[in-house]
Amino acid sequence: MSDLVKKTRRLGRPPKDVSGYNESREALLQAGVEILTEKGFSSSGIDEILRRVGVPKGSFYHFFGSKEVFGAELVTRYAAYFACKLDRFLLDKTIPPLQRLRNFTADARSGMARHEFKRGCLIGNLGQEMGTLPESFREQLRAVFHDWQARVAHCFEEAKACGEMGEMSDCHQLAATFWIGWEGAVLRAKLDGTPEALDLFADFFFSSLSRK
Amino acid sequence: MSDLVKKTRRLGRPPKDVSGYNESREALLQAGVEILTEKGFSSSGIDEILRRVGVPKGSFYHFFGSKEVFGAELVTRYAAYFACKLDRFLLDKTIPPLQRLRNFTADARSGMARHEFKRGCLIGNLGQEMGTLPESFREQLRAVFHDWQARVAHCFEEAKACGEMGEMSDCHQLAATFWIGWEGAVLRAKLDGTPEALDLFADFFFSSLSRK
Repeated sequence: MSDLVKKTRRLGRPPKDVSGYNESREALLQAGVEILTEKGFSSSGIDEILRRVGVPKGSFYHFFGSKEVFGAELVTRYAAYFACKLDRFLLDKTIPPLQRLRNFTADARSGMARHEFKRGCLIGNLGQEMGTLPESFREQLRAVFHDWQARVAHCFEEAKACGEMGEMSDCHQLAATFWIGWEGAVLRAKLDGTPEALDLFADFFFSSLSRK
Repeated sequence: MSDLVKKTRRLGRPPKDVSGYNESREALLQAGVEILTEKGFSSSGIDEILRRVGVPKGSFYHFFGSKEVFGAELVTRYAAYFACKLDRFLLDKTIPPLQRLRNFTADARSGMARHEFKRGCLIGNLGQEMGTLPESFREQLRAVFHDWQARVAHCFEEAKACGEMGEMSDCHQLAATFWIGWEGAVLRAKLDGTPEALDLFADFFFSSLSRK
């Protein structure tokens, strides 16, 4: 156990003014993403997250107030992390536009393989759980998908401009379709424990796209 | 409360030899499908199912032994129900093969709309939850997808035979791709509370298919 955590336990409240304050908060968020991408929101217990990080419960509630607020912050951070990752691929002008998105799917495939296809997409997991989540999550999750879609649609506009896609292609609809199918593929890859679904969907999507 | 249920409560055990025995069991399975297609497995409590049906807990455990066995039976029944539904559409020789699958998607869309897009697919829901489900579900869920895929692949073979799809099409891969994307679309339609994702994916898939 770190000195920070020992100190926190002793004081019975989180150490606001020490450098470890943010460290504990970060560690909780990191563990939260790891656990929720495997198990979703409803089945992930706060206790499990605390155990993994070695932070007392009081600190958790001091940092976040409730599991709902914690979940909302996880979504925000995951969305921001993914937006950066998408930009890294989709704004790479050295590569033809459609290949950039293919490269993103290849990277996501490697990421899932690294975790033995046990971790999916936090946004997809929580989206699937909407039947039991606080209603506040719905608009947040939809906004994340819309953000990701806008980034992919922009890439498709570039593909159109350089003749990789037909003039009549509706880039926003195609971007929405990509995320609909890709989330389905991530779900199935988790169930199968293999990358087959990711490959099948990506191959179908890109080969169809080049004909549009 | 029915006489059957009153009697069951009085006796403290399920009435094996009355006609209501199967009626209670059926009612539990029916409520189970309804609740699990909204909430998934982990978030659906036995108590909620019992309350909806008005059957005592003892009967539930007498009928099923555990929530895991109950879940497995729900999967079996849902799969059988869906296999029949698929056959009804996909074996209708009066309609061209690809239109049969389109008709199935239109029917599924109407079904989701009837429940205000709150209920998804039991198999997709449980697949998404594999991170927390008993491992025994994995092969059962995969087998259901394989069964549905085989039915769709057979329909694609007929589409190929009558020239609706190219000679080189891999019917099994395309059928797998259909279910990967369709499950993603059902997930997203639940999150959005609208049919848009179903329409987008179906339009993309069928327009791509006719070019294969």
